[in-house]
Amino acid sequence: MSEELVETTAESARRFDGVRLRLDIAYVGREFHGWQIQPELRTVQGELRHYLTRLLGRDAIPVAAGRTDAGVHARGQVAHLTVRDEREVERVERALDRMCAGDLEVSRVRRVSPDFNARFSATARRYSYHLIQTRDIFRPHVWHVYRELDRAAMEQAVGHFLGRHDFATFCKASSRKENNECDVSLCTFEWSGDSAIFHVKANRFLHHMVRNLVGLLVEIGCGEWQPEQVPALLAAQNRSDIGRMAPAHGLFLEEVDYPDCCLDPAWRDPRFTNAEPLPAKELP
Amino acid sequence: MSEELVETTAESARRFDGVRLRLDIAYVGREFHGWQIQPELRTVQGELRHYLTRLLGRDAIPVAAGRTDAGVHARGQVAHLTVRDEREVERVERALDRMCAGDLEVSRVRRVSPDFNARFSATARRYSYHLIQTRDIFRPHVWHVYRELDRAAMEQAVGHFLGRHDFATFCKASSRKENNECDVSLCTFEWSGDSAIFHVKANRFLHHMVRNLVGLLVEIGCGEWQPEQVPALLAAQNRSDIGRMAPAHGLFLEEVDYPDCCLDPAWRDPRFTNAEPLPAKELP
Repeated sequence: MSEELVETTAESARRFDGVRLRLDIAYVGREFHGWQIQPELRTVQGELRHYLTRLLGRDAIPVAAGRTDAGVHARGQVAHLTVRDEREVERVERALDRMCAGDLEVSRVRRVSPDFNARFSATARRYSYHLIQTRDIFRPHVWHVYRELDRAAMEQAVGHFLGRHDFATFCKASSRKENNECDVSLCTFEWSGDSAIFHVKANRFLHHMVRNLVGLLVEIGCGEWQPEQVPALLAAQNRSDIGRMAPAHGLFLEEVDYPDCCLDPAWRDPRFTNAEPLPAKELP
Repeated sequence: MSEELVETTAESARRFDGVRLRLDIAYVGREFHGWQIQPELRTVQGELRHYLTRLLGRDAIPVAAGRTDAGVHARGQVAHLTVRDEREVERVERALDRMCAGDLEVSRVRRVSPDFNARFSATARRYSYHLIQTRDIFRPHVWHVYRELDRAAMEQAVGHFLGRHDFATFCKASSRKENNECDVSLCTFEWSGDSAIFHVKANRFLHHMVRNLVGLLVEIGCGEWQPEQVPALLAAQNRSDIGRMAPAHGLFLEEVDYPDCCLDPAWRDPRFTNAEPLPAKELP
């Protein structure tokens, strides 16, 4: 087979399948009613759909790794999108970020494997939660706790979350799944003066899990619970045992991990062949 | 005269004059349409009037050192207010800050001389302007310039503003006064990585003066003007000579200076006896 013929075949295959793109996205949560498209409300997915539809001349909806709630920020959200051909790839690469408003940023556009699915190919997600013990009206993206916190107690408590546990206690009751186990590989506080950043990474997260964890940790910091009570709370699997949930505006989706092979546009895995973006009306 | 009688006389005089209070105020500019009360719009003065009226049971309007424009922040705004008696002082001290929303803070309430006027007693004001050469959507209170700036040229230019000059060139044309001279005692850049803070202090500022100064300084940083041209621009007194004004959201009113005697509640100076707060409908 001549080299020319090989190229032609490859090109034709690419034209037929379209090109799968990975978008790396950041946004300021307070400006959006969450990720997911909702009628009459400004959402991240809705805003990107609006830009992409203008750019490509047809309806185009990106699908995200995690559908963040209203008010939650993202520095490392990932979405996928299928475009038709190389001309469309270029158009998205060149114009998408320039179209975005000052509260939304598409920091990178990459060709990936046709089987790449931002949500189902992900192997881990990392979140951070920012809090401060005092008040500073010029820091809108932190939870102002206004309380003196017992740091040692909070440090001791986070140790109980590391490893594989059933996190049903920390899941919004109506969103529970049959299996609520999560593998937590990172769970730590980073203190700096009056401020703290809570870092947590796991293979998956349940609905409201990070905000419920932070809510309990702050109550532990205020002396309302003892760190030793954490294992019993986890075992009870009862959301109503724990107190209030931390507010959305301190939470950042920082990073989503994928296997290296996903990022190689030449890679193809039969497990993901049905993972096309859903049409708009069927979005869950 | 018995000691008891002296006290009674003093108390009665205080009841008659009322008590002059100084309020130290911070606010996030983007949440307000400036300081000054405007019908149908959320303003800082309007918001404080609303809280004070609820607190005191009658219309009460604070008067500020500087009526900041829409979008401009304050960390050190000062206002004065007259209350009737000690009971009202206590009420303002205890409740005002707790009534305020998360974007407005009354950090301190102090009894001051009855002649204290937040606007006319002030001897100097200090502003800061925050800018960044790149983009960071999580820093809403800075001007994202997106340009490489020539720091040496900007440092050289600020030297020309120090001292007493006519700043008509940097004043909104419709707001010019007969005398547009200002004594600039501080004018400097503080650089940190990709960011800069411009600090400027003067006995008075003309309308839009800081934002026009920063606008020109950034144009100098971009090579559109040479630092040596600053004296000629000042002398020309022509606003249309210079380029665009820097946006409001990078500007902070940091501090207002007063003579020490103003802060002493026992002090009284005939110069300020007519400086009572104006009734609402006559506010300029």
